[in-house]
Amino acid sequence: MSHKVTIAVDAMGGDEAPGTVLEGVADALAADENLTVILCGPADVVEPFAATHGRCEARACSETISMAEHPANAVRTKKDSSIVVGCRLVKEGAAQGFFSAGSTGACLAAGTLVMGRIKGIARPALATVIPSPVRPVILCDIGANADCKPEYLVQFGQMASVYAEKVIGIENPRAALLNIGEEDAKGSQFAQEAHRLLAERLPNFAGNAEGGDILPAKFDVVITDGFTGNVCLKTIEGTSKTLFRTLKGIMMKTPVTKLGALAIKGGLKELQAQVSPDTYGGAPLLGVKGALLVGHGSSGALAIKNGVLATMRIVRAGVSEIIAQTAAATSASATMNNVRRDA
Amino acid sequence: MSHKVTIAVDAMGGDEAPGTVLEGVADALAADENLTVILCGPADVVEPFAATHGRCEARACSETISMAEHPANAVRTKKDSSIVVGCRLVKEGAAQGFFSAGSTGACLAAGTLVMGRIKGIARPALATVIPSPVRPVILCDIGANADCKPEYLVQFGQMASVYAEKVIGIENPRAALLNIGEEDAKGSQFAQEAHRLLAERLPNFAGNAEGGDILPAKFDVVITDGFTGNVCLKTIEGTSKTLFRTLKGIMMKTPVTKLGALAIKGGLKELQAQVSPDTYGGAPLLGVKGALLVGHGSSGALAIKNGVLATMRIVRAGVSEIIAQTAAATSASATMNNVRRDA
Repeated sequence: MSHKVTIAVDAMGGDEAPGTVLEGVADALAADENLTVILCGPADVVEPFAATHGRCEARACSETISMAEHPANAVRTKKDSSIVVGCRLVKEGAAQGFFSAGSTGACLAAGTLVMGRIKGIARPALATVIPSPVRPVILCDIGANADCKPEYLVQFGQMASVYAEKVIGIENPRAALLNIGEEDAKGSQFAQEAHRLLAERLPNFAGNAEGGDILPAKFDVVITDGFTGNVCLKTIEGTSKTLFRTLKGIMMKTPVTKLGALAIKGGLKELQAQVSPDTYGGAPLLGVKGALLVGHGSSGALAIKNGVLATMRIVRAGVSEIIAQTAAATSASATMNNVRRDA
Repeated sequence: MSHKVTIAVDAMGGDEAPGTVLEGVADALAADENLTVILCGPADVVEPFAATHGRCEARACSETISMAEHPANAVRTKKDSSIVVGCRLVKEGAAQGFFSAGSTGACLAAGTLVMGRIKGIARPALATVIPSPVRPVILCDIGANADCKPEYLVQFGQMASVYAEKVIGIENPRAALLNIGEEDAKGSQFAQEAHRLLAERLPNFAGNAEGGDILPAKFDVVITDGFTGNVCLKTIEGTSKTLFRTLKGIMMKTPVTKLGALAIKGGLKELQAQVSPDTYGGAPLLGVKGALLVGHGSSGALAIKNGVLATMRIVRAGVSEIIAQTAAATSASATMNNVRRDA
């Protein structure tokens, strides 16, 4: 039996907020009877909704952070914005997780500054499920850390592996380093050093992955710095979108092609759903105290629903707690190793 | 009227060499009557072919560099390998360009060590035409320089713009920096510094491109370091390949879908040809003295033919000469600026 979970939700996150958010939250509440939502946003949006929906509380906020604002500054100054309030509810224990489809930068800043880093984690990292038609692949970091030290990638690998196993349900996930060749010694100086550390410290490390290995799901977890990861994720999305758009043009060209398209329409829709980021609802910030999931700005109601439910699953799986234990164990064993070396 | 050009070709380059290479060379010779080929490889391969084909000379080589060898070491020790000999023919003026679908690393090493860098060019860079269904996009660097300094990217942009304009025929190409946000101040410290230098020194610089902007051809030239560029290129190729494979599965599922597939087969084939790397035949190493084009290891006869013809077009367009002039002019103007600053 799944236990009761309370998730704070940003009513003002996403290009079509609050409409799609309210619709998605209603669907999420209907999907799980042990879910309670605290809806954060303007009083005139959240109060009427909470009044008409069970297991939903309103938390009126007087401020909103827009996509255009400088994330860290906005988080520091707008203490009563839905993003800061949502993270504070987690910090204070009123909720166990927070979901927003608003400014990714502001969510990362609020997650780190308000919810706080897990002890022993050098840098929280943003992971995402790459929607592959083969099977899901976790990519981490996808943009929380544009500048990385090679050693950060070991923790990215640990945290993403916990997420892959506990939330996505991949048993014994195989983790790889995103690099520009299969052989161990390939790549930039950064990649070579990261490879060495991963081989030494990450038990489920399986070697290098190339860009072409991600969508075919050659590995379950792909580890990289936030710059490369972000370029890679957006490249996959842009490539899929362009190919589907071109394909549509081909199918709509003549009456004959239109007829042909009818026959494969069902399968195509299924494929599009498989490769749609909406299926997994968002990107978790791993390494903070509590669950934080950031949705796509373009999230529709389905993505919002999936995002809220995914945040709930992160809480139920105890991802933060397991990451905290792993970090503590790793730092203890590092200390032990140092003691041994010193002896 | 196009002038006579001699291209050296590596008979042993590619997974299916020498068969596909000979077929491709024959087709290239048939396609342009002002083309002469010097075929480099084992005597028993190149001599019979040259004896039966007009405008083809044989250059027997006693060694071959395999894909598995350490590139720079192989180039230094195997002086009579087809890759080293081909580059030497350009260096000595017997040919104006060299094409190989063999080891990329060995071609880069031989291009730089044997043909030599153009004066004033800090690092030669590998460019490629991203086969977009919208229009061709040049990505540079795609792997010659895994470790870069931000200032290298200015020359990558200059050289790739010359290639885009003179060889691919894109008038006034708009160049962008591959980054993780559209705004100027986004990205890693490296990307921010590269952005600053590009804005200052590259007249056709048009701002930041994100990973999702490449295939939709939002810009004509996309500039990046060799690590990110290689990940990005392979990600595009892997994503396309996986989607086409899945699509094929959908179309072959039932008799009805098979019938539907027939109607759009023509358009699909056209799209696959548009996004196939074979169409452009390979990646030029820009910044060396002479033309050097490296083909995909998986090159079929069509890719070899297109690669040989593309190498010829690089020679005819005078790409190396224009890059040398640009490098000289830039270094002269930099000197002038320094003089002014000192004054």
